[in-house]
Formats: sequence, structure tokens, C-alpha cells
Amino acid sequence: MTTKNFEITGMTCNHCVMSVKKELEKLPVKVNNVEIGKAEVEYDESKVSDKEITAAIIEAGYNVNV
Amino acid sequence: MTTKNFEITGMTCNHCVMSVKKELEKLPVKVNNVEIGKAEVEYDESKVSDKEITAAIIEAGYNVNV
Repeated sequence: MTTKNFEITGMTCNHCVMSVKKELEKLPVKVNNVEIGKAEVEYDESKVSDKEITAAIIEAGYNVNV
Repeated sequence: MTTKNFEITGMTCNHCVMSVKKELEKLPVKVNNVEIGKAEVEYDESKVSDKEITAAIIEAGYNVNV
């Protein structure tokens, strides 16, 4: 399992936290923590890539610092 | 009819706009516009008071400048 912290820009409030969380939970990952500016996600790289996780965050309407 | 612009603090994003709008729409008012930082509401003062409108905005989780 890989644990990675994604730095996210554009999140400003708890609604944003919920949006990111909801989008990440569609993936086969364990969402350890989401707060304004970041999300910690645990995942099996054979099942999901960090590219897909980044895409989910973008889908929620935010950007990821890479 | 009275049209009043409520100055709101704490709104940061479109989720906040939606939350304020949703709460205001529970009242017998016409919500002309909601954007980050303000809401324009049209209402009949015999039916609803600006105190009730302010209370709805607070209920949504924000503050009103008076």
C-alpha cells in the first residue's frame, strides 16, 4: 500500500473538503484525511494510479500541486 | 416590496453561494442574486422581516454585516 499526500489548491471551506472527499471515495482507495489544501490517500498502486487520484480531485473542481 | 442587499462574510466559494441561496429560498422571498459576499433579496415586509432573512443566512453558516 502507498500513502500519499496530495497538495490541493482552490479549496476554501468545508464544502470543498466534502466535495474532494466524495470524489475520492469513488475510487478504490482509503481516504485517510481531507482538509483545506490537502488530502491523504492510501492505495494499492496495482489498483489505482496517482494520476487517477489527481483526476478525481480535478473532477471535484480543484487543482493538485505536482 | 422591499429590495435589500445583505452583505455577508465567510462566503468563499460557489458551494457557499448555493448554501445561502438554498436557505433563503425557504423563506417567502424572491432571491434576486447571491454571490460571494452578498445576497439581494426582494420581500414583502408584512410577510418576512430582514431579521428572519439574516437568521437564514446565519443558519447557512455565514454572518451578515449590519
